[in-house]
This record gives sequence, C-alpha cells and structure tokens, in this order.
Amino acid sequence: GDWACPLNGCSVSDLRAKRLITAIKTPYLASGKVDLFAYDALVEQQIAGGVEGLIVGGTTGEGQLMSWDEHIMLIAHTAQRYGGKVKVIGNTGSNSTREAVHATQQGFAVGMDASLQINPYYGKTSRAGLLEHFEAVMDLGPAIVYNVPARTSQDIVPDIMFELAKHANFAGVKECEGNARIKQYTDNGVTCWTGNDDECHDARYDAGAVGVISVTSNLVPELMREMLFDGPNPELRDRLLPLMNWLFAEPNPTGINTACAMLGVAQPVFRLPYVPYAAALRAQGAEHLRAVGLDAVAGDGAIRDLSDADFTILRDW
Amino acid sequence: GDWACPLNGCSVSDLRAKRLITAIKTPYLASGKVDLFAYDALVEQQIAGGVEGLIVGGTTGEGQLMSWDEHIMLIAHTAQRYGGKVKVIGNTGSNSTREAVHATQQGFAVGMDASLQINPYYGKTSRAGLLEHFEAVMDLGPAIVYNVPARTSQDIVPDIMFELAKHANFAGVKECEGNARIKQYTDNGVTCWTGNDDECHDARYDAGAVGVISVTSNLVPELMREMLFDGPNPELRDRLLPLMNWLFAEPNPTGINTACAMLGVAQPVFRLPYVPYAAALRAQGAEHLRAVGLDAVAGDGAIRDLSDADFTILRDW
Amino acid sequence: GDWACPLNGCSVSDLRAKRLITAIKTPYLASGKVDLFAYDALVEQQIAGGVEGLIVGGTTGEGQLMSWDEHIMLIAHTAQRYGGKVKVIGNTGSNSTREAVHATQQGFAVGMDASLQINPYYGKTSRAGLLEHFEAVMDLGPAIVYNVPARTSQDIVPDIMFELAKHANFAGVKECEGNARIKQYTDNGVTCWTGNDDECHDARYDAGAVGVISVTSNLVPELMREMLFDGPNPELRDRLLPLMNWLFAEPNPTGINTACAMLGVAQPVFRLPYVPYAAALRAQGAEHLRAVGLDAVAGDGAIRDLSDADFTILRDW
Amino acid sequence: GDWACPLNGCSVSDLRAKRLITAIKTPYLASGKVDLFAYDALVEQQIAGGVEGLIVGGTTGEGQLMSWDEHIMLIAHTAQRYGGKVKVIGNTGSNSTREAVHATQQGFAVGMDASLQINPYYGKTSRAGLLEHFEAVMDLGPAIVYNVPARTSQDIVPDIMFELAKHANFAGVKECEGNARIKQYTDNGVTCWTGNDDECHDARYDAGAVGVISVTSNLVPELMREMLFDGPNPELRDRLLPLMNWLFAEPNPTGINTACAMLGVAQPVFRLPYVPYAAALRAQGAEHLRAVGLDAVAGDGAIRDLSDADFTILRDW
Repeated sequence: GDWACPLNGCSVSDLRAKRLITAIKTPYLASGKVDLFAYDALVEQQIAGGVEGLIVGGTTGEGQLMSWDEHIMLIAHTAQRYGGKVKVIGNTGSNSTREAVHATQQGFAVGMDASLQINPYYGKTSRAGLLEHFEAVMDLGPAIVYNVPARTSQDIVPDIMFELAKHANFAGVKECEGNARIKQYTDNGVTCWTGNDDECHDARYDAGAVGVISVTSNLVPELMREMLFDGPNPELRDRLLPLMNWLFAEPNPTGINTACAMLGVAQPVFRLPYVPYAAALRAQGAEHLRAVGLDAVAGDGAIRDLSDADFTILRDW
Repeated sequence: GDWACPLNGCSVSDLRAKRLITAIKTPYLASGKVDLFAYDALVEQQIAGGVEGLIVGGTTGEGQLMSWDEHIMLIAHTAQRYGGKVKVIGNTGSNSTREAVHATQQGFAVGMDASLQINPYYGKTSRAGLLEHFEAVMDLGPAIVYNVPARTSQDIVPDIMFELAKHANFAGVKECEGNARIKQYTDNGVTCWTGNDDECHDARYDAGAVGVISVTSNLVPELMREMLFDGPNPELRDRLLPLMNWLFAEPNPTGINTACAMLGVAQPVFRLPYVPYAAALRAQGAEHLRAVGLDAVAGDGAIRDLSDADFTILRDW
Repeated sequence: GDWACPLNGCSVSDLRAKRLITAIKTPYLASGKVDLFAYDALVEQQIAGGVEGLIVGGTTGEGQLMSWDEHIMLIAHTAQRYGGKVKVIGNTGSNSTREAVHATQQGFAVGMDASLQINPYYGKTSRAGLLEHFEAVMDLGPAIVYNVPARTSQDIVPDIMFELAKHANFAGVKECEGNARIKQYTDNGVTCWTGNDDECHDARYDAGAVGVISVTSNLVPELMREMLFDGPNPELRDRLLPLMNWLFAEPNPTGINTACAMLGVAQPVFRLPYVPYAAALRAQGAEHLRAVGLDAVAGDGAIRDLSDADFTILRDW
Repeated sequence: GDWACPLNGCSVSDLRAKRLITAIKTPYLASGKVDLFAYDALVEQQIAGGVEGLIVGGTTGEGQLMSWDEHIMLIAHTAQRYGGKVKVIGNTGSNSTREAVHATQQGFAVGMDASLQINPYYGKTSRAGLLEHFEAVMDLGPAIVYNVPARTSQDIVPDIMFELAKHANFAGVKECEGNARIKQYTDNGVTCWTGNDDECHDARYDAGAVGVISVTSNLVPELMREMLFDGPNPELRDRLLPLMNWLFAEPNPTGINTACAMLGVAQPVFRLPYVPYAAALRAQGAEHLRAVGLDAVAGDGAIRDLSDADFTILRDW
C-alpha cells in the first residue's frame, strides 16, 4: 500500500516515440544460468543496429522460466549497463497480482524505464478483476499493456483497453490481434505496437502503429530499423517474410532460440519445455537466413552446422 | 536426474476408479493466508458427501496465486490429515519444466497420491517440447494430464495424448474439450474425467468418462455423488444446470469464491486478480442455491446477505 | 496476525517425557538433493533403536543449507511417514522473526509435533527483542528453546529463560552451556535436554535433565537408549566418549557426515561449507567405531575405505 | 561452475584506498518494505559527507532480515543511482556456500563494486571448509573478508586469513578483533578496516588500518571523515566516544535504528527481532547527539520526542 520509489521509469511520452523494441532473447550457459557475456553482446548489437527499446524477460526472453530474482537481476543488469542508450522495459507482469506488483516495484527500483503488463493468463479473471489488476500495476509506473489472446486465452477487448488507457501511466498497447484492431486504437489516440512481426510494416504505415515489439529484430535489427524508419518498403517486408514465418513455424521462442544457436550468438542450450527445431526445419532456416544476407544478420556471418547431439536440453538449471 | 522417493503416490489403477474428484476451493483469512480451519471443514464435508479425490491448488484452488512453499504446505497438510480417506492430487504442473518437476517431486515426498499436469500455458511449446515436458513430470509418479485450451491456448490433440498415454504413470485425462473428444479417448482405453460440470452427466453415461473433476461439487458433493454413482438421471442434471451455469458466468474461480462467501464456508476474502460477482449476479446465485435446496448445499443452510463492502480484496498477502 | 491451524503439535507434557531425541543427519544424492531413501532408512533405524524424537533440519541436519521449501518438505515427509512413531520436531527457528514465524506455521500445518527455536544468531538482538521474538514463535505451538552460545554468540541467560518458560507452549530447553546450568533449570521445574553428547549421562543422572538431543545417536541409537533408560552406567559413558570426542573434533556436522559416509548410510556427498574429515582423522574414526562395536553402529557392519577422491563436494545443489 | 559476468566489480587496489565506508542503515515504510526515498536521502547525505563506500544489507542494514530478491534489489538500486560516486559493497555472504555464491554472482551482475564475505556463522565449518567456502565466493570478484567472532562464534585466525589473502580478489579484512590483530595484518601487507567504531581512530593512526567500516558514520559522516582524513585527533575521538558507546549499548542495529527514528531520517518502524531502545536509553541518546552537535548529525537538526507508542514493531513484512 505505502510503496513509493524515487526511480519510476521514463516519461510515457518518451516511451510512445519508440518504434523498434526487441523482445530480447536470453542466452544460456551450459549450466542453464544466464550467459551474461552473450547477452551483453546481443544487446550491444541491438543498440548498434538502431533498436530503441528492449523487453527483458518477455515470453521470447523466457521470463516464464526465470525465478523472479533472476528476472530482476537481468532487468537491473540491463538498466545498469545500457540504461540511457535503450529503453529497458521489464516484463514484470504475472497472472498473480501480488507477483506482478512486487516484480514491478522491484523493476522500477533497479532502474527499468517501463513495464510490460499481461492480463492474467491461465487463471483468467472477470472484467472487474482485470481493471483492479491493471490499476494495481499501472499505479507503479509507465506500462505497456500486452494483449495476446493466443497465449492468454482471453482477449482484452477494446472496451476494457479504452478504460485502461485513461490511466496516467498507460503508455500504449502491444497488440497481437491484428491491424484492424490496431487501427481502431490509433484512430482513438491509443499508442500501439504490433506484436506480430509479419504485420509490422503495414501496422506502421497503414494502421497507425508507432512500431513493433519484435522477435525478428533479435536477428536483423538494422533491417527492421530500416523498415520502420525509412518509409513504406513492401519489397523489404516481403524479403523478410519467409524468415519471420520460419521463426513462428513452432511456438516462439523455439525458432529464435534455434536461430541464435545456429548463428553462434547463443550457446545451443535450451531450458525445457523448449527444444530446438528439428534438423530439416533448421536447414530451411539456414536458407532463409542466407537469403536475407548473413552480413545483415546477428553473429559473425557464419551459420553453424549443428546436429541434434550438439544441443543441451535442460530439465533443471 | 538422480531423484528418487520412497513415497510415489497411489496406483494408477486405483486412481482410475475414482468418479468424483473436487477441485477444492482454497479459503482465506483476512490476511490472505490460507484459512486452514475453513479448509479442513470443507474437506471434511467433501469426504462426508462422498467425494473420492481432491485437486489441491488447482485453478479453482488458485494454485496460480500461491508460492510453491504454500502450495506444497497445503498438499502436505491434506495428505497428512486426509490421506487414505480421499485421493490427494496436487496440481504441481507448471509452464516451466523445472518448476513442475520440483513441485511434483516435493508433492510426492509429502504424500500426495498423484499429480495433475498441465501443458505449458502462455509460454507454449512445440510437440517435441510437450513430449519432453510431460515425460519429465510423469517419470516422478502417477499423473492426470489436464487439457483446457480455453486456459492454455493450446489443445493437447489426441495424437499427442495417445503418445502420453503410453507412459506407465499416465492415469488419464482431465479433458475440457467436450464429450466427443472424451468418447474418442474412452473408445481407445484412455481414462477420462471431464473438466466441465455441465457435461459430466453425459460424459459419464454417454461418452465413457469415469467421472468428473468438478467445481460444483465444492457446493453440492452429495448431489454430484448421486449423479455419478446412481445411474443416468437427466432430471437431476437439469436441476443442477442453472447453478453450474451461474458458477461459470465469469471466469472460474470467481463464481465459486463468491458462492463460498455467501454460504459462509469461506470468509469473503479475495486474492487479486479475483473479485466477487456483483450484487445482481449474487442475487441470482442465491436463487439458484435455494432452488437446489440449501440442505444439500455446503454450509449451515443459510445464505449471507453480503454487500460489496463486506468483501476484502487483497493486492498482497 | 490471524493465523490459526487445526494441527498444532503434540502436548507439551508428552514432549517433556522424551529422553532420547536425535538431531537427524540429512543424507544427499550426488546432485545434492535430499536422498529420501537413505533418510528413511536412517529414520527407521532410529525408531528401531528406541529413539523417541527427531530434530528435522537441525544444525546437524543442515537446515541452514536448505531452502525453506526443502526444509518444510522434509518435515512434512517425516510427519507423514513416521508421525505417531516418533516425535517430529522441526528446526523452524531463524534469526529473522518473519522467517521463523512462517516456517513454524508451515511446520505445524504439515504435522510436526513441536518446533526447535533458536535465539537470533549473527544478527543478535536485545533482551526485549528476544522476548518478542520467542513470543511470536511460541504462540504457534509447542517449542523447545535452544541455547548454544558457541554458535549464536549470545547466551540466553537464566533470567530470560525463566521468562520464556512462562509461556504455555514452552516445552523446555536444549541447553549446551553445561550441567551446572541445567541443574539450575531442573531445580526450578524447567525441563532440559542437554545438547552435549559427552555430558548427557551426567546431565540425566546428576543434573536432572530428561535426556539429550543427540548427534551421536545417529550412529548408535541403541547404546544411547541404554545409557538414558537403564540407569547410571559410567562404563558405557566412558566407552562412547572417544567416539563422541571424534565427532566433535571439527565443527559438527563435519564429523557425523564423515562417519555416515564411512558407514555407507549416506552417500559421500557434502554441501559446502562442509567438507569431510581428512584421511588421518577418518582412520581414527574407524578405530573408534570398531572399538564401540560395528554391530551396534548404524549401517551394515562394514566401514568403507574411502579416499579423498570418493567424496563429492558441492558448491551448488 | 560456468558462471561468468562482464561486470565484476572495481579493482582491488581502488577498494583498498577507501578509508570511510558506512554499513548503511535500511529504513522501512510502515508496511515494513524498504523506504527507498528515505534510503536515497541517507545515501545522498553520506556522499555529501565524504563517505567513500557503502555496505548494503550488512548486519547494520539488516540483510539477515531480507529476502535475497530484496537484498539484490537494494544493491542494484544503489549501484544504479550512486555507482561511481561511492563504492557499492554488497553483503552477499552467507553461511550457505550456495546462497553466498548465488547472491555474489547476482550482486556483481547488477553492478556492485565488491562483496563483503562472512565466514559461516551458526552452522560453523572446519578450516578446510572455510578455505573452500571463501575460494568459491572470492572467485567471483573483489571481496572484503569479515571477521566478527562476537557474531559468528568462530574467529578467522591469522593463519587462515593469510591464506585467504593470497587470492587475487582478496581486497582486505573487516576486522573486529581489535587493533593488535589489525597491526599483525597491516605489518604483513594485508589491508584492514576496523569494524569497531570506538577503535577506529587508533586503528588508522596506530595500527595501520586504512580506515573503518562504520555504523556511527550513518549519523555523523563529516566528523568521521574528519577523523580519518585530517590526521590524529584524540579530542574528536573522545568527543564521539559517548555516542559510539550508546549506539552499542544493546546489540547493533538496535541503537542506530533508534537514533535514525529519533532524528527523523527513518520512520520509527522495526522489523523483529529488533526493537527500539527503551525511553530512558533514548533520552541518554538525545543528550549524546546534542553534545556532538545536531548540525553535524544526519537529519534536520531536530530530535523527535518519540513515545513507545510511536514505534511500529513488525512480525511480518
């Protein structure tokens, strides 16, 4: 009740200006602990490539597999090293209001700029419960509300979203329900980032989205930057589509994890329940990456030829 | 890897014979801690009413809002006091394999009979990932696999379920996808409990389900027992339907929580993101309960007339 | 504040009648997790040997190296399997009042008979603070207060102990300050167990102690039983002294851990900061064990000839 | 095993040059959560007063009452806001090697400059165990070893300390065993900070200590700075002695907590097992503070007249 913090994130308007935000991958050591050297290398490549914000421990970054202390450590580490250079947005939401509140308090205390807030997945609640939940977490600092019914099984419908948008700390929506929904929001002054890479070009240029919270930008930050900053470019969009589709051939972050291992930017270590793409699908990915051009892709310009035996799959970490 | 436990649950065949299993509600004190006196009273009423198994800390019991130490405490408490009288099934699944494995190990170590295992919700995985995840947890002891796409956003399709069913510790399925799906399983020798109260009569008598894992039985254990044990009874089914529909008017466990408060079997205390039904809906619930007959309903035969101010809604506990 | 539990331990008078209580060793798997098969074998040997109570997760059992969820799991497991046959006393004290209260609540909820409560070690407090701390934990159920200045750096002086002894849940003292102190208590009606094995014979027969909370009884339960139950026996006392002195040649539980590995009742696995006795000291221990008689010692009557390389020393588990 | 971190603290030589390090008090809100506004105000006053380093979550800062996630949050917060202005030294030691290693890894990952490492208190270990324990934590980054037998019950004797001093990350000793011990170290090239405020003047000018890790400097940073930087000043030493003695009239941090509440730099909120000094002792403290001069003391130059009822004593937080 009486929580207060001298660090409470960046301004909402500052956040609303960011077009390219990456849901950053978390790389692991063979032990399963976070590989901070690999992580920092990824982040530095992101910043060099023009990425403006990072979601730390998102579903892509596997926050769902972290203990909260590991999650907050990673937010703090990122804020400590890269705060000021890139917006640090902690995925401190939860389906438990208590956990979301505590994690969000801690995230701001250690220097994050904003939080990403999901509606209660799995243990779903009512409209009134949603409003109470989001109020509790938005009271703490700038927040992006995340709507992804394909994960949560519960759409945050526009009626509710417009209600949430009245809160002073509401920065905008990460919306995965498509560009028609986004247009409905942007027409009414609600800032949107699409959560769908394959729709982000049109989201920005047709539906009024400020940009994207992207998985693909882990691999091709500069090309994503170009697509979002340099005006409509259907050719670039279509060139990236096969890679994007491949990344989502199986539930994210399975694809990005596989790609990062193939590119050598992360060790081939998986925390269960995630496992790498099978060999045939990996081979297709290698073609897509080469088609995009390896000089535009994260890593050293080479693709590792990994066999199944090269991957470590962990039950514990 | 080297975990082993002298306590590893009941036999799979013993579990498969249980028709009436309750996803038991967790009652709270004003502080938000578990009200163990109220909990034990509920459990004793369940046993007296003929309930044969309990899911401890299910979505109904709000395992998603518990710390693991609280969750394991409640499983241990239940096993300690009521083991032997009722099957104690811990909802020790998780979308993190590590957490599911650890919680399931602990649950067996403290005396649970079996675990309930969900597929990774929210942070979904691939078919290969699902198989690895379930193998990790089923290796530890008897398990009921839980399929509820309306919460997980990912259907465990029959192809995968039949694969899981080969495991020696696979006891059966808690299936929420309807009676056609259940019939497909029972025709092929896979034990099923429906997770849908409103379909349980037909699941048992038409689709071959052994029974139900029920929310409604928190309130009317004897009537549920009668419906599942005394042969087809469409009249009873139809008599209970309005109450069942009311319980699911908003996402469970909002309804059961409200009902338990109205009946005085739990204090009117909610952990967020759950909030009580509004007054008008509560009034309808009172009618449904009276229509069923208060002498068949949990509690002392009276319905409390609770105003909104009588409820405590907690952000922290 | 509002905690209440239908399980709140055994009666204080029942506890006061127990002469032989073992601070049970926690054996580990190679992974560092608790070896529950080895643990149960130890416990069963204890019960067969006439031990009447167990301290679970004491300093001997390395509660200081357990997460609370592991600690409560072990209490619950012990209560579930052996409750009724032996008093299960959880070492749920802590130098943090919050942690002690929470752990003690959980311990009673899962069936422990009583708690062992230490004064705040390391982060020591004042007389008034001590009284508040002990009141908070004794309010929850039967408690044995543990005074061991050689670990806590703070003597619970008689003046304070007599104050604590007024609480209805105060069962007695585990006292390590010697038999003169014990006599001072027993002369005034305060039940005492000595915490010093080498003094236990005289504590019982000269100083009025009811008995001992013992490390040595992990190895020789029947001989300890004989010493405490069959009347004064200086010969037996003196026969056991060399073994006792060896067990405390380095800080406990280093010695008992080494002995259990040598006897094969625990795998040779150590959680740091504990390491095994060096080879020369192990050789002396083997002689002491043989002098006592291997048929009276835990295990299979054989002593393993372990080299340094046979021990696993873990930094993480 | 495979942990590595791009942030691994400051240089050992940089750390060895710091004379005045404060074991900073942790102030609380009425809820018992950390009062970050009050904390930051204290830290800023420390920096303004010439303090060169902070121990975060020391025994004075009640790290023993924090969850690790709260402890790491506070280290991260301090590093984020004040890193570069003051050395941030996390008290990430523990009597569990696993916990010490994990906390120390996290502390460096979030930007601390060095760790403070205690020997295993309460659950004491052997010489060989001590060496293994300290090696495990010193491998991670710069460390100050803390010897305080009056809390740990185990002296780290010179023989062991000289062994530890060989490690590349060994920065020096916080020694509480007095100036003769300190002289023995400094004569042999081992950097020392005394942990005894009342001896710090002589430690620096007679025994070769670089300075002090101080409790008193929470209250009078500038006077402590003067004493340590401006040459021998027995008059100043003697002027501060009554205040110092008062602060340790009961076990620290009882005194500093009381003083901070009286001075209004922390709310009068105590986490148990700590309780405030009684009224008579508070009155003496007020006299000592006035004798030193309120303009040199933390706060606004006023002393609050607190009655017992003004203090909040928390069992949970």
